[in-house]
Amino acid sequence: MSPLPDCQTLLLELHGGVLHITLNRPDSRNAMSLQMVAELRAVLAAVRDERGVRALVLSGAGGHFCAGGDIKDMANARAQGTDAYCELNRAFGALLQEAQDAPQVLITVLQGAVLGGGFGLACVSDIAMADHQAQFGLPETSLGLLPAQIAPFVVQRIGLTETRRLALTAARFDGHQARRLGLVHFVEQDPQALAERLDEVLDHVLCCAPEANAATKKLLLASAGQPSNELLDEAAQWFSEAVTGAEGIEGTMAFVQKRKPGWAP
Amino acid sequence: MSPLPDCQTLLLELHGGVLHITLNRPDSRNAMSLQMVAELRAVLAAVRDERGVRALVLSGAGGHFCAGGDIKDMANARAQGTDAYCELNRAFGALLQEAQDAPQVLITVLQGAVLGGGFGLACVSDIAMADHQAQFGLPETSLGLLPAQIAPFVVQRIGLTETRRLALTAARFDGHQARRLGLVHFVEQDPQALAERLDEVLDHVLCCAPEANAATKKLLLASAGQPSNELLDEAAQWFSEAVTGAEGIEGTMAFVQKRKPGWAP
Amino acid sequence: MSPLPDCQTLLLELHGGVLHITLNRPDSRNAMSLQMVAELRAVLAAVRDERGVRALVLSGAGGHFCAGGDIKDMANARAQGTDAYCELNRAFGALLQEAQDAPQVLITVLQGAVLGGGFGLACVSDIAMADHQAQFGLPETSLGLLPAQIAPFVVQRIGLTETRRLALTAARFDGHQARRLGLVHFVEQDPQALAERLDEVLDHVLCCAPEANAATKKLLLASAGQPSNELLDEAAQWFSEAVTGAEGIEGTMAFVQKRKPGWAP
Repeated sequence: MSPLPDCQTLLLELHGGVLHITLNRPDSRNAMSLQMVAELRAVLAAVRDERGVRALVLSGAGGHFCAGGDIKDMANARAQGTDAYCELNRAFGALLQEAQDAPQVLITVLQGAVLGGGFGLACVSDIAMADHQAQFGLPETSLGLLPAQIAPFVVQRIGLTETRRLALTAARFDGHQARRLGLVHFVEQDPQALAERLDEVLDHVLCCAPEANAATKKLLLASAGQPSNELLDEAAQWFSEAVTGAEGIEGTMAFVQKRKPGWAP
Repeated sequence: MSPLPDCQTLLLELHGGVLHITLNRPDSRNAMSLQMVAELRAVLAAVRDERGVRALVLSGAGGHFCAGGDIKDMANARAQGTDAYCELNRAFGALLQEAQDAPQVLITVLQGAVLGGGFGLACVSDIAMADHQAQFGLPETSLGLLPAQIAPFVVQRIGLTETRRLALTAARFDGHQARRLGLVHFVEQDPQALAERLDEVLDHVLCCAPEANAATKKLLLASAGQPSNELLDEAAQWFSEAVTGAEGIEGTMAFVQKRKPGWAP
Repeated sequence: MSPLPDCQTLLLELHGGVLHITLNRPDSRNAMSLQMVAELRAVLAAVRDERGVRALVLSGAGGHFCAGGDIKDMANARAQGTDAYCELNRAFGALLQEAQDAPQVLITVLQGAVLGGGFGLACVSDIAMADHQAQFGLPETSLGLLPAQIAPFVVQRIGLTETRRLALTAARFDGHQARRLGLVHFVEQDPQALAERLDEVLDHVLCCAPEANAATKKLLLASAGQPSNELLDEAAQWFSEAVTGAEGIEGTMAFVQKRKPGWAP
């Protein structure tokens, strides 16, 4: 097969038909930087036509999965104006679509922070397993922002009813609740149990034929209807309006200054 | 802001960015009369562009939420012919659409009877909380009628699988089951616990930015696909055929006469 | 009413407005042969316009519901080439659509093997009840095949998230899990309890007016969106490619020879 791309933000390890991808920016709880988005997309593209790679396991280094978007990229985009926000946002949505459509079985192993963009990645995985203490949430609107590229995938994952409550209250919840909501398939008590569950699931996946699994996954996604490009384009526009509007400015400033934003009681 | 409309069937109370709307026809367990439908639509329209009104709390006076359609209106419509039924039915569907699309976070507090149209209102709320003894149900087909405007919103709320059983068996169920079905988010033991839960939820909602929440809600609804106008128009036609047909006449007569209809075993 | 068709693979019994249909090939755990598919479609067509037949109860003889497709038919199709596989597969999808669209309330009583095509039939029933020891599963991809006609109905029944895991790991599960997944409405401890539950459910169904129930069912299905003919046509094509491809040949051969296929670890 063609060589895997060189990555600064990811650790890659391929053995036995399984590519282990580790988000590796532990200092920022694996916040999803523009570079990380680009590298993940490059890795998915590199293995897309390789039926010898049968499963992808996505996890985070240092006890967290992914704490959301990267603040530094946001600040740079601010310097460049509204279009830069729109592009930054839309690129993350493209990653979510490409991860969802990967012909391989995509497995996420969720520990620590699973927020914003990390939450989105969990939503496009075929099989998700969480530590019981993992912290899930969509904090965007409490910062004056929108879960713009993420929301359509959350609705597809857990349905409109639960997504309404989560997104409109910025609720936090743990692994047990994630299972009750149908966001993850398995919840485990500790890293050892997570590792054993992963082995068991991979064993089952590898008993299924690679082309049959790829065709079946395509069929399942076609059956469900996928979040449309049109909606995701529009959502990126709304995001850039929110982040550059009064609420977005106040919300991100309040966050940095560790104070309540003006709208909070 | 522009003044709220004068209402005979509703109590309105606005404070702290929250509009409390109480269905107030306790003698008929807050049955949804044509006037109540019109007043609710007027209130929603009055606050639609007011971002200062950030949440709507919908509840019922006298221990019940809403027992369904109003018998007197039905009798009047009967005098006016099939078209009147169709209009009456479609107006309720328009209320459900407008309540679903309200930019504010819509919270329902569900006690006592939550039947027919009351069930429909619960289905379009962003956050629903129920007393454990609340009585939910779709009794329509047991009366020879259809849950015509309601059914598409129930399917959207709890999915096709559970809706089939409920609608085709006219099943009754309580608050615990409503939670298990994903119809409501919280179930509480008594009015005091409901009030505390409402305070807690409102607190979370008010920590989210008003415009960000309105944009996010629009995005979530666009992600899920909404019950179409075409289907609701057609359903109103089917309703008026059912209510003026042999089954509708027998079913409503049997109900008034407190006897079993001819088709029951 | 017009007479019911003569059937070799089904037992039919009509009384009290309820047609009991028993899959009756106990020697092959009621595997879904081409003849059985044709007979089921003929029975559904015969009662379609009979409002006096108000419910259909589908179960299996000899302690199993249905173990999937019939091996002998597959072998015959192999002799006839790819088109024969495509037709065989598509005919089963047509049965699923017609069963889903039956104006009657369709109830499935699920015991023993509920695999492949049997799983599909469970997914199109209005009310499903299972023995706690029933064995559910989608084994197709572990045989190098696709759950081609079935998958769209499974996604509609239990959602994309759970279907991904089940289809891509060929997971087996029992009646309790089937209830947790929302596949069935009731799970019971033994045949006696299943029979009592069936009586209770039929009692509720028969309290609902026949035309009102038929119109309501049509409305619910229109609300949910149905698996499209186009997708099912394409899926049949994919199926015939899979079964005649390298994986399908190896997978079915390994199954017959009771050994692991080449791709399994």
